[in-house]
Amino acid sequence: MTVGSRTPPPREPRQERSRITRERLLRSTIEALAHDGWSAATVAAVAEQAGVSRGAAQHHFPTREALITAALEQVFEDMTSTASTAITAMPAGPDRIAAAVDRAVRIYTGTEFKAALQVWAAAASDPALRQLILPMEDRFAHAAHQMTVEALDPDGANPQAHNVAQVTLDLARGLGLADTLSDDSKRRAQVVATWTELVAAALRSAEGV
Amino acid sequence: MTVGSRTPPPREPRQERSRITRERLLRSTIEALAHDGWSAATVAAVAEQAGVSRGAAQHHFPTREALITAALEQVFEDMTSTASTAITAMPAGPDRIAAAVDRAVRIYTGTEFKAALQVWAAAASDPALRQLILPMEDRFAHAAHQMTVEALDPDGANPQAHNVAQVTLDLARGLGLADTLSDDSKRRAQVVATWTELVAAALRSAEGV
Repeated sequence: MTVGSRTPPPREPRQERSRITRERLLRSTIEALAHDGWSAATVAAVAEQAGVSRGAAQHHFPTREALITAALEQVFEDMTSTASTAITAMPAGPDRIAAAVDRAVRIYTGTEFKAALQVWAAAASDPALRQLILPMEDRFAHAAHQMTVEALDPDGANPQAHNVAQVTLDLARGLGLADTLSDDSKRRAQVVATWTELVAAALRSAEGV
Repeated sequence: MTVGSRTPPPREPRQERSRITRERLLRSTIEALAHDGWSAATVAAVAEQAGVSRGAAQHHFPTREALITAALEQVFEDMTSTASTAITAMPAGPDRIAAAVDRAVRIYTGTEFKAALQVWAAAASDPALRQLILPMEDRFAHAAHQMTVEALDPDGANPQAHNVAQVTLDLARGLGLADTLSDDSKRRAQVVATWTELVAAALRSAEGV
């Protein structure tokens, strides 16, 4: 068989190529926000980083606002996906509580949260951006809370699970913020261990065991 | 007595005037950071806001870096001062635990923390700024932790106080962040109430009561 007689691979459909380009631009935006800050995430800079032509980037995101909005949607989608990592198959008990707490902490210690933090900081003085973020954040907060409650209290029987899940997520957010300027993982492990014990005790005590 | 015969008030000494001007510029910088964001806190903008001439402002802070550094020192000083609000006179018990938790939350829900957040966000992509912040933050974290431990465990006898104080401060930081884009005080009150109960239970249980 000669080289010339090979059947060429099927051409990537245009729609699929477009989807991949868009995704690459969004990944690039999230990385730029997290590592280089708010002002680094422009359409031109992100296109260059993603190896996408400026024209193609502008076709997807005609303005910086469109790019940031789409990146923010992706951030909340990724964070929701982390919040729903499967742990529900685990039997209820200490291991499952530890897994639920770890999962909550993972939401806030990833690149996505570091990117979100840059957008939040910018939004503090930008009412339009704030109005864009708040409903997304609200939806995310509800989803993350529900998934944490389900992980901590699979039977839906523990009256303390709702509040304990809320504290877990607020604590995780605080730990995430402490990790933005330096690697806080060693100190964090101790805080997470303490919190996991306290959650187990609180749920046991609310069960009246 | 005629108007002319009144003894004029003693002239404000130059040093005192200079101190007041400096303080006014720093207050203005902290307000600008918290409400208008990182890029708003320039020497010129802050001078105008503070009603100080640009020349006088530049005498105190020749560069933006000098202004931000001094404002950051002021922020950590103010936060340390909040962390040391007197509650040690209260008898040990549930009221004192509630006061200690409230105090920790106050550290992270004031204007100072909102200003610090802007500097942290900027520092994520500015290694020089990061190197400036980290030692200040470290000193503050140690002081706040020590004061929280003392408030929770005045006798220094509870083996759980150290860890519980740490969780309290990380949770408070997370609550502070949740308050930056919208007023979170209502939801926060519920989280604080849950946490205060859990702290009391954890300290009781560690005491073996």
